[in-house]
Amino acid sequence: MPVTALIPFRPRNPKTRLSCVLSEKERENLADLMIRDVVAAVSEAGCRPMILSTHPYSLPGIDVEVREAGLNEGLNRFLEEWDDPLLIIMADLPLVDSDAVKRLISTRKKMAIVPGRGGGTNAIYLSKASSFRVDYYGASFLKHTKIARERGLSCQVVDSFRIHTDVDEKEDLVELLIHGTGFSVRYLEELGFSLSIEKGRVGVKREKNGDE
Amino acid sequence: MPVTALIPFRPRNPKTRLSCVLSEKERENLADLMIRDVVAAVSEAGCRPMILSTHPYSLPGIDVEVREAGLNEGLNRFLEEWDDPLLIIMADLPLVDSDAVKRLISTRKKMAIVPGRGGGTNAIYLSKASSFRVDYYGASFLKHTKIARERGLSCQVVDSFRIHTDVDEKEDLVELLIHGTGFSVRYLEELGFSLSIEKGRVGVKREKNGDE
Repeated sequence: MPVTALIPFRPRNPKTRLSCVLSEKERENLADLMIRDVVAAVSEAGCRPMILSTHPYSLPGIDVEVREAGLNEGLNRFLEEWDDPLLIIMADLPLVDSDAVKRLISTRKKMAIVPGRGGGTNAIYLSKASSFRVDYYGASFLKHTKIARERGLSCQVVDSFRIHTDVDEKEDLVELLIHGTGFSVRYLEELGFSLSIEKGRVGVKREKNGDE
Repeated sequence: MPVTALIPFRPRNPKTRLSCVLSEKERENLADLMIRDVVAAVSEAGCRPMILSTHPYSLPGIDVEVREAGLNEGLNRFLEEWDDPLLIIMADLPLVDSDAVKRLISTRKKMAIVPGRGGGTNAIYLSKASSFRVDYYGASFLKHTKIARERGLSCQVVDSFRIHTDVDEKEDLVELLIHGTGFSVRYLEELGFSLSIEKGRVGVKREKNGDE
């Protein structure tokens, strides 16, 4: 039976820290394309993607469950009812590939985790979902490894920059432009984004549209 | 024969972007302890560490070659003379562990590379060093993969956040405090650094010394 890959998603007004370079509509488009990249990677790794959305959302062929709850509350209610293996993976990881997902779900430990940059948690694999509860926000990586210890769950930290790199801020678009291969990097390029190098530091610039 | 792991190093006034939180002497100490963490990881992975230093420097039991040249010039002169396999790994990667190094040096391709954050290159493994030349600074990851293509060298991108994470700026100390296990994180803690969480964002704070 394939492992279910649960992807929490907020389709409305997402990625507000990118407001400096993207309009609300563009941020919604980018979020939609990033989750498609994640869906493609987990599917290729043999998982069954399922989206846990805060608002009505649809993606052809993919189960979407709408729960108007906070991230922790929505996920923990889901975990309680789920005795099978489960992968929880964030929607803003457009660099993820199937190899990284396979390393995660093939752990021999009770769970595996990939930290995000800045102390976050970008993916958790649980061999028995109901044995765990999540506590996102802040230094959630430390909270999740502590919960694992408290519950006696052996835990592997999986070493992947592709899952480690979430897209929240303008600087993160550098990573997407350099290492992306999917839908979302093509969209960024269509919007006129490219790398810029000033004083040896790599950033992004956006070509202005004709009328701007 | 063990793979030589060449570690370029600048022991004098290093890591200037950390000047906001560390004195010059502290930056030198931190750089010295970070390279010890790298030396420990490559040694545990079965490599023979060798330091290519811009200034006189010594580490017990480790070969140090001093070349007063820029990074590219010093490395490329070294590469020309080296027909054997070689790992080039940066000195500011205190999260690196032996598993990540083993994945890198066990590639089946002619070379393997791990990108740094922001388009840099944090490690390159070459099955035949003299077949390559390096071009660091700016988006060096793109330059290095281009050089590989031009020279017909098959190249694997190794997916490791432990090698991806270099320590250049204050924000990078968050990663070291969370994921570090070696000499350099202990030094940071001795200096009074700890995590701080404000409005859900994780940063670092430094306890003031008594007299300050």
